[in-house]
Amino acid sequence: MEKILVKSSTNAYTISIGESLRLQIKQFLNKEYSSILVVTDEHVAALYLKDILENLPAYRVFQSIVPAGEKSKNLQTFYQLQTEAIEFGLDRESLIIALGGGVVGDLAGFVAATYMRGIDYIQIPTTILAHDSSVGGKVAINHEFGKNLIGNFYPPEAVIYDVDTLHSLSEREVRSGYAELIKEALIADKNFFNTLLMVDIYNVSNHGLQKHLKQGIRIKAAIVEADERESGVRKYLNLGHTLGHALEAELGYGTLTHGEAVAIGLLFSIHVSEALYSIKLPFDELVQWFKTNKYPIIGTDLNNLALISKMKSDKKALKSKIQMVLLEDVAKPVTRELEDTEIEIYLTSFERRLMVQ
Amino acid sequence: MEKILVKSSTNAYTISIGESLRLQIKQFLNKEYSSILVVTDEHVAALYLKDILENLPAYRVFQSIVPAGEKSKNLQTFYQLQTEAIEFGLDRESLIIALGGGVVGDLAGFVAATYMRGIDYIQIPTTILAHDSSVGGKVAINHEFGKNLIGNFYPPEAVIYDVDTLHSLSEREVRSGYAELIKEALIADKNFFNTLLMVDIYNVSNHGLQKHLKQGIRIKAAIVEADERESGVRKYLNLGHTLGHALEAELGYGTLTHGEAVAIGLLFSIHVSEALYSIKLPFDELVQWFKTNKYPIIGTDLNNLALISKMKSDKKALKSKIQMVLLEDVAKPVTRELEDTEIEIYLTSFERRLMVQ
Ligand SMILES: NC(=O)c1ccc[n+]([C@@H]2O[C@H](COP(=O)([O-])OP(=O)(O)OC[C@H]3O[C@@H](n4cnc5c(N)ncnc54)[C@H](O)[C@@H]3O)[C@@H](O)[C@H]2O)c1
Ligand SMILES: NC(=O)c1ccc[n+]([C@@H]2O[C@H](COP(=O)([O-])OP(=O)(O)OC[C@H]3O[C@@H](n4cnc5c(N)ncnc54)[C@H](O)[C@@H]3O)[C@@H](O)[C@H]2O)c1
Ligand SMILES: [Zn+2]
Ligand SMILES: [Zn+2]
Repeated sequence: MEKILVKSSTNAYTISIGESLRLQIKQFLNKEYSSILVVTDEHVAALYLKDILENLPAYRVFQSIVPAGEKSKNLQTFYQLQTEAIEFGLDRESLIIALGGGVVGDLAGFVAATYMRGIDYIQIPTTILAHDSSVGGKVAINHEFGKNLIGNFYPPEAVIYDVDTLHSLSEREVRSGYAELIKEALIADKNFFNTLLMVDIYNVSNHGLQKHLKQGIRIKAAIVEADERESGVRKYLNLGHTLGHALEAELGYGTLTHGEAVAIGLLFSIHVSEALYSIKLPFDELVQWFKTNKYPIIGTDLNNLALISKMKSDKKALKSKIQMVLLEDVAKPVTRELEDTEIEIYLTSFERRLMVQ
Repeated sequence: MEKILVKSSTNAYTISIGESLRLQIKQFLNKEYSSILVVTDEHVAALYLKDILENLPAYRVFQSIVPAGEKSKNLQTFYQLQTEAIEFGLDRESLIIALGGGVVGDLAGFVAATYMRGIDYIQIPTTILAHDSSVGGKVAINHEFGKNLIGNFYPPEAVIYDVDTLHSLSEREVRSGYAELIKEALIADKNFFNTLLMVDIYNVSNHGLQKHLKQGIRIKAAIVEADERESGVRKYLNLGHTLGHALEAELGYGTLTHGEAVAIGLLFSIHVSEALYSIKLPFDELVQWFKTNKYPIIGTDLNNLALISKMKSDKKALKSKIQMVLLEDVAKPVTRELEDTEIEIYLTSFERRLMVQ
């Protein structure tokens, strides 16, 4: 088991990564809680809820199961969970456990952040992508006008990451999670990036997975420690997300997974960086790796103007220009504002470039 | 103008109390904001919105007006305000101004706390009661099962208290606000309590009002500085609220104002304290003062068992016993857990005692 300590402005919490951890939950509870509510989704409930429940202290433990998928990150489900928490009698000394991927983590975390003005919660991430979402304290639900618009910064008490649970993930979800690992490597660690370029993501050992997750989390944790509320360096974590989010919205959520959309966004950021800074970055190598690992790298038939308008309604786009994270080199991120017309030109050349790959 | 500085765990903010402050809002803005949304209710909008808008910087200023009263502190209005904020284009560099009583402050504050995971807000309280709600960073909306169940601790950037606005308050609202001042005096300041006992609350000068508010805020600020998240001394601020909240719920919200219910709750706390600690407290003097100032001091025809069940669903009631704030003396608060049977006995003797007053 590996442990990483993250300091936030209000607490410090440990991320534990290892095998069979879901069977040892009890030992990660630092307090006596008056009751515990485990929030999970229907897929994860079928696979791992029993393991968790059997290994919790004997006292009052409740469960709330939400439908799987992004649609549960909405106001109604949020309120429904608040209602259940009240009905189960949760009080200020209670604990919420978020068992699942980023959806459950963001949703249950926001319930914990707001129930009676905030109670403790623990993340038990069960997707690779959730190595990202479970660290850093961002919790949120979606507004019908945009993702993650209603939320808090609210760090968990602990993150317990059992790599055993990751073997039941579908290939899509494995792809989705590895895209964020690639992103972290591109932001901060050339060696890690080169290591990942040799990985066949569908055949990673528990040992390898643990190493990759640990390295991704290290990078993320260092950044959020330096800038919890995203006024500076935390913005770098949006590498690939300007186009990524726009693609998700434009194609309809669920068409691409978040990570698949980010994968294309990463390539676009590299493409723009190469052009703007007249440098050579590993664009071709990364396209090849994405293709080998079955990422849907689509670059044609996109409506550029619609994408640009979506990029502007992205909440990170202050005022009217589009802010992108670019790379002066691998592990040298910068932010830059671009005019719509520039973005349009780069999108066109990007699509042409992908066509000939 | 008086200024009180409050330190919170995440910032420090100034409470300014004085005359004509609503006409000088601009000078209280510490930053350049990309846009400003003023949230207020329909009563306050008719009286003071124009004053505020005319005195804000020329740039993008928007307004959202909600219905007056407690019913606006609900999920629907919360979401509606989020929607308007998005439609107006508020971003992370925007400001929300809460112009109104505790309802607007709690609601708009919670919108600010959660919009894009938290943006700045300023409180411009316009009720006497809001001297309490605008200080300390508690923001919330109600759940259909209970008051303030969904919220955050999220301090404002500033509180700007213009005593001129308080002269348009109805007598009920004046009573409601002064009950909380009495509470603060009982918790922490015998001289202040004795001063208040000489006040005719419907004929206080601007100067007197300013002095009382300042003293109340000083007491509240000191307590929340010592215990922001209510794990210790902040509980003392619930003096009178155990029965107060139960009465509000049992009689139907709006029958008594919050402060009117708290007034009865304060008497009950004193009554229990006298019995439990075999001491003499100013019960009779306070009843007299409440009556002189037209507080509805009802003590008959109450359903004790229903009240007790309501007291237990109060979120401050950990586990199954009822926790009350009591007084060992004026300015010497303590907390104590009581059995249902004790509460019932005290309620009965309390009602009998009020009947003969
Ligand atoms: N808070 C943050 O900082 C942050 C960062 C990145 C992403 N996110 C959010 O994360 C969400 C996406 O997370 P996600 O990709 O984990 O989505 P998800 O939670 O929807 O999980 C994806 C799918 O995998 C299933 N699943 C989960 N664990 C499984 C397992 N072990 N075996 C089999 N199936 C399993 C789920 O039921 C779901 O159908 C988005 O809402 C995004 O906004 C948040
Ligand atoms: N956050 C906290 O720490 C805290 C503390 C105490 C109370 N509260 C909350 O405060 C709320 C009660 O606050 P309130 O009593 O101010 O209620 P309120 O905001 O509803 O105001 C009472 C009435 O007075 C009107 N009004 C407001 N200002 C006026 C003015 N200057 N002239 C004429 N009319 C005016 C309002 O329109 C309303 O009809 C409750 O929801 C309670 O939960 C919060
Ligand atoms: Zn992402
Ligand atoms: Zn009160």
